[in-house]
Amino acid sequence: MNVFVIGVGLIGGSMAKDIKRLVPEVKIHGIDANASHLEEAMALELIDVIADFDDLHLADVVIVGIPVNAMLTELPRILDHVDDDCVVFDAGSTKATLCKILEDHPKRRNFLACHPIAGTEFSGPSAAIDHLFQGKTNIICEIEKTAFKLQEKALGLFQELGMRIRYMNPEAHDKHIAYVSHLSHISSFMLGKTVIDKERNERDIFDMAGSGFESTVRLAKSSPAMWAPIFEQNKENVVESLEEYIENLEAFKQLLLNDNYEGIYDEMNNTNKIKEILKGIPLNK
Amino acid sequence: MNVFVIGVGLIGGSMAKDIKRLVPEVKIHGIDANASHLEEAMALELIDVIADFDDLHLADVVIVGIPVNAMLTELPRILDHVDDDCVVFDAGSTKATLCKILEDHPKRRNFLACHPIAGTEFSGPSAAIDHLFQGKTNIICEIEKTAFKLQEKALGLFQELGMRIRYMNPEAHDKHIAYVSHLSHISSFMLGKTVIDKERNERDIFDMAGSGFESTVRLAKSSPAMWAPIFEQNKENVVESLEEYIENLEAFKQLLLNDNYEGIYDEMNNTNKIKEILKGIPLNK
Repeated sequence: MNVFVIGVGLIGGSMAKDIKRLVPEVKIHGIDANASHLEEAMALELIDVIADFDDLHLADVVIVGIPVNAMLTELPRILDHVDDDCVVFDAGSTKATLCKILEDHPKRRNFLACHPIAGTEFSGPSAAIDHLFQGKTNIICEIEKTAFKLQEKALGLFQELGMRIRYMNPEAHDKHIAYVSHLSHISSFMLGKTVIDKERNERDIFDMAGSGFESTVRLAKSSPAMWAPIFEQNKENVVESLEEYIENLEAFKQLLLNDNYEGIYDEMNNTNKIKEILKGIPLNK
Repeated sequence: MNVFVIGVGLIGGSMAKDIKRLVPEVKIHGIDANASHLEEAMALELIDVIADFDDLHLADVVIVGIPVNAMLTELPRILDHVDDDCVVFDAGSTKATLCKILEDHPKRRNFLACHPIAGTEFSGPSAAIDHLFQGKTNIICEIEKTAFKLQEKALGLFQELGMRIRYMNPEAHDKHIAYVSHLSHISSFMLGKTVIDKERNERDIFDMAGSGFESTVRLAKSSPAMWAPIFEQNKENVVESLEEYIENLEAFKQLLLNDNYEGIYDEMNNTNKIKEILKGIPLNK
């Protein structure tokens, strides 16, 4: 089997690792805009060979893990190059714009729109890890637009990787994911900024911050090149979630200013049920 | 040695565990407003005996790990009961109000104002863990107001627990800790609230949230009984940090509304230096 990984970073590289372990006699071809990432991926044995778009006719499976703005230009070109029996799937964090752009592509039936909810705050080939997808959710959009045999091929692979499948339309995906993922990133980046701006002397942060701070700002380590295009493509939903978040923070501030500590207690107590909710989330660490 | 732990929860219980391991022939006496916590602490062997304030004259060391509002009423009473050779220290997350209240206490020299930057989002005796304080910072305020011999006794114990000491005045402590700890808790609680309010169907959160969401809302599991009084005592600094955070979120929203994705990239890129800062923070997990 010939698997092409386009974008040999955290997601593409981790899939390559799992597939090499799980699928006998697979050959992994790597394509990346960044030549040093390709060399790194070869050195790490994530890929067996460096390829380009002219080799794509060999592909049985193409995995595309690149920033979501690049998806919009590259996926139509990728589909132009693949054979009828090849399934191409992406791993982007936004789905509506991409599905819209590919809607009338002659090879639309070769494409499966995916969002594996898996990752870490790190990026690049060296961030690739084994078993990243085990027990994680893979959201698939517009399954009915993919050729039946190619659905089967992709779903078989996802099963081998240990993923749970959820089906959703692209608009619902983008709306929900704004709340449970994109907003967390903004919250974390701006929390990091607020503290860095205040504590000009970084030594003070080292000395006074604990694991709680680390946890809430972890996502502020994420790649801006990956995240700016996500916010762009999901602007409307992200702005809505951000407005609701700011309103809740403002309300909390008002409770403080009014010395309403019973109200503050209640707000926290009501939100404590997140304990039960988080128990249901499969985690990396 | 007779050590009294007042408040046999996460902090008091974890100190008790470490001290039992490190100090030969120590006897740990437990005092708590919650009788079932005392029974649990006995069952978990965190404490050797259940005690009350009338036993405090036996104490060589008293560790007070109770909500910061209870500190204001209980610490003067505790000091009233101890002998001259006994050192009493607290573990509260606010320092200015407490130090003010104890300023003129006849036994002020028996008290050491401490804030060990250590903990988890869990609470109660069952949350107590070994080695919680290893490599963590302990902020000590107004060291000069504690009797020299009692400073030595407490510092010796902190060294055995593996803690790094930093000295700070109570006002500076409260100001900095608002940014690096208290604000993270509000950010996390309100993020959890925003998502819970939106996703009435909790199944959607289970299915779509990943480890990033879990990390940013982890602190929303924290105890409201512990945290409402912290926000009350540090109201002014917390409101200031919250206002700066809201301003940064508003500015981010404006960049989005203006389609200024270069600006968004720059904001994230500048905050990425948190990677280096976090490397310096000793973590539990």
